[in-house]
Amino acid sequence: MRTILLIGAGKSTSHLLKFLLDKAESEQLHVIVGDIQLENAQKLLQQRPNCTAIKLDIFEEEARKNAIKKADLVISMLPARFHIEVAKDCLFFGKNLVTASYVSPEMEALDAEVKAKGLIFLNEIGVDPGIDHMSAMKVIDAIRNKGGKMILFESFTGGLVAPESDTNLWNYKFTWNPRNVVVAGQGGVAKFIQEGNYKYIPYHKLFRRTEFLEIDGYGKFEAYANRDSLKYRSAYGLDDVLTLYRGTMRRVGFSKAWNMFVQLGMTDDTFTLEDSENMTYREFVNAFLPYSPTDSVELKLRHYLKIDQDDIMWDKLVELDLFDNSKKIGIKNATPAQALQTILEDHWLLDETDKDMIVMYHKFGYTLQGKNYQIDASMVTLGQDKTYTAMSKTVGLPLGISALKILNNEFKVSGVVIPILKEIYEPVLSALENYGIIFTEKEVPYNGYNPNNVAG
Amino acid sequence: MRTILLIGAGKSTSHLLKFLLDKAESEQLHVIVGDIQLENAQKLLQQRPNCTAIKLDIFEEEARKNAIKKADLVISMLPARFHIEVAKDCLFFGKNLVTASYVSPEMEALDAEVKAKGLIFLNEIGVDPGIDHMSAMKVIDAIRNKGGKMILFESFTGGLVAPESDTNLWNYKFTWNPRNVVVAGQGGVAKFIQEGNYKYIPYHKLFRRTEFLEIDGYGKFEAYANRDSLKYRSAYGLDDVLTLYRGTMRRVGFSKAWNMFVQLGMTDDTFTLEDSENMTYREFVNAFLPYSPTDSVELKLRHYLKIDQDDIMWDKLVELDLFDNSKKIGIKNATPAQALQTILEDHWLLDETDKDMIVMYHKFGYTLQGKNYQIDASMVTLGQDKTYTAMSKTVGLPLGISALKILNNEFKVSGVVIPILKEIYEPVLSALENYGIIFTEKEVPYNGYNPNNVAG
Repeated sequence: MRTILLIGAGKSTSHLLKFLLDKAESEQLHVIVGDIQLENAQKLLQQRPNCTAIKLDIFEEEARKNAIKKADLVISMLPARFHIEVAKDCLFFGKNLVTASYVSPEMEALDAEVKAKGLIFLNEIGVDPGIDHMSAMKVIDAIRNKGGKMILFESFTGGLVAPESDTNLWNYKFTWNPRNVVVAGQGGVAKFIQEGNYKYIPYHKLFRRTEFLEIDGYGKFEAYANRDSLKYRSAYGLDDVLTLYRGTMRRVGFSKAWNMFVQLGMTDDTFTLEDSENMTYREFVNAFLPYSPTDSVELKLRHYLKIDQDDIMWDKLVELDLFDNSKKIGIKNATPAQALQTILEDHWLLDETDKDMIVMYHKFGYTLQGKNYQIDASMVTLGQDKTYTAMSKTVGLPLGISALKILNNEFKVSGVVIPILKEIYEPVLSALENYGIIFTEKEVPYNGYNPNNVAG
Repeated sequence: MRTILLIGAGKSTSHLLKFLLDKAESEQLHVIVGDIQLENAQKLLQQRPNCTAIKLDIFEEEARKNAIKKADLVISMLPARFHIEVAKDCLFFGKNLVTASYVSPEMEALDAEVKAKGLIFLNEIGVDPGIDHMSAMKVIDAIRNKGGKMILFESFTGGLVAPESDTNLWNYKFTWNPRNVVVAGQGGVAKFIQEGNYKYIPYHKLFRRTEFLEIDGYGKFEAYANRDSLKYRSAYGLDDVLTLYRGTMRRVGFSKAWNMFVQLGMTDDTFTLEDSENMTYREFVNAFLPYSPTDSVELKLRHYLKIDQDDIMWDKLVELDLFDNSKKIGIKNATPAQALQTILEDHWLLDETDKDMIVMYHKFGYTLQGKNYQIDASMVTLGQDKTYTAMSKTVGLPLGISALKILNNEFKVSGVVIPILKEIYEPVLSALENYGIIFTEKEVPYNGYNPNNVAG
């Protein structure tokens, strides 16, 4: 028997755990699920065999060390900032580690020691980061293998609702941490490269500079730029690429509507509102509008944001009860972002039967023998219900698949790594296809280049 | 003879020094001007009697202590963050201190010890802060003395060019630290109260939410909100006031034009531009616009900011050579704000003969025996030339006048104080009138109140 210690029993672990327990017999696994709340772990396991739920507070050093010492491999589903304590114990006791989180500088600093012990700490092996790395590198390596030179790479991911659950005017519900959605794009300029030109978008313009995408069978999407478009430039070997852009996908029209909140100042998370607890939704709106002795909140907002009387943008606001004067924020010392999240959660939480949807879209531009080509690759995964979500599936399966492959010594690499190596992405992507996570590639005309250099 | 140590011989000291030296004989003063660059101090003094220039680096402890020990009073014109070292020595050696800067928490913390020694550390005695405090408290106290209850206070200050030097489309030149102008309004939401309602303006809307003001003989002005409108609410005794607003004055049209830079992202000071040193002005503009293989920077900008072909906003950009492709930023690792400052300094620095102008405008609303009243008070001071500026005059004279009054024991108060007490503001304002710094008061209809509460 091999023991896998899974730390953190959040709602994103449903598919991961199902995968591991389905494999438990054939792969001779025992899965220990540790969570700070024992009931969370117990609820997930539902008395299946080959598994145990334990209470585990990772800040209780002895308990943490004991649990890690007994395991053959550790999967950490903790919030990213808590991985490092687990990682240090894994290093000490010689255990391999798998996470879906970005490599922190502290994690990166362990690389030499992890290598020296012949261990693998595989990170960023969820959906984004994770499936995006793997699916991108697969195409990039294939282009290089046939002698092509990469000149453009754009990559987009979105966590959305499936078409059948797409029931509001925003074409959006919270399928992941609502807070991250409300503050998305804040904290720094969005920086990317288009045809060799560095471009910068400030936050207050981010949602007005969208790109459009279309996926066969699923219609049109839009995307706004991530802050970190250049993050993997060197890791992917794209230092000479002319266009490098990463974005977040939404249904067309979401960003224009979201921009209303940005313009009003409602997504600000840097200050607290006076008496937010007793503030009604209407008062919240009015706090961002000029005072007037004669005009309604409605007309002030229409004028301020230049919303015509027949503009669908208006209906989107009304749908959220934004002008309701009885509903209250109900949170002490709330920032505008926290207040807005409260308002959105009235309408954007998933129902029990709602299905979510993960969409991913890559564009690869390259030159080969003097000609330009482009390959577009896209993937759509639908959720089953509120528990077995597409998010949980696309995060959990790469984690589970790679954990098993590590247990079975199928990867040769050691150190603190991300899944951009062929020896990792090829078998993991291949296994994912068995679960319906499949990329569709198609050749399209390369339209990113500027042959006559007429302007820039 | 009494010795005044004046630390920091920047360009804002011209009027202060002239004032002190003109009084040197009658008041038996010796003025020592200490600066980290001896030539700065020497140039200012120009071999007048009753004064000495010394080299003074305030981070050389012994020299600093020696200079302070010998003085009867210290005026610190250093950047605000450097006052505290000087203040601690003043406390130790029992010397009074005068500054034009905001009271820092470290300065405030000295209050009890300063009081215990019977000393006065008078801060915020320049123009803004300074003359604004004094002229406001004079009217507020008068209203209270006749039984009125304050319900509205709005206060506006601007450092502008005099009408005869108002020669560009922006009606603006740098009369103070250009950097502060470029980053003005950043770092937090603007918060104020209108008729009992807290209002919040995010930075990207700040320059589109201006108020208008008119000063007899000087025409129309506009003002955008300061971040700190509520800062002196308690100090002024205005905790129950319904409207409290502080703003910065510009000529009408400046803010709408400045907002173009804000919207583009050019005032951002939080990241550095790629290869800013070799970037042309045109390339700088283009970095904030989408890439296009076919459209000019000009058309992209017009479209992005919705500037019609006959809009004066466009001419304001052209006046600054914003689309010039030969002029270069020329600064390594420049932030957008630093690059923009470089561009503006080509056109907005004062010529030798340019005159600046300080404008101040207060509105006081109050109730008396059931009726509402309003008093507006305004002040305009014009500069003489690039050296004897209105800025230097309105900062320097309150400093100099109050320093002399402290030397002559005319103030009874002790501790770390600001000039909101009658014993300070009354004689200082009275003395300022002799130098032409005069407020004009007029009664106007009170129009801030909302009698029927029809909307908010």
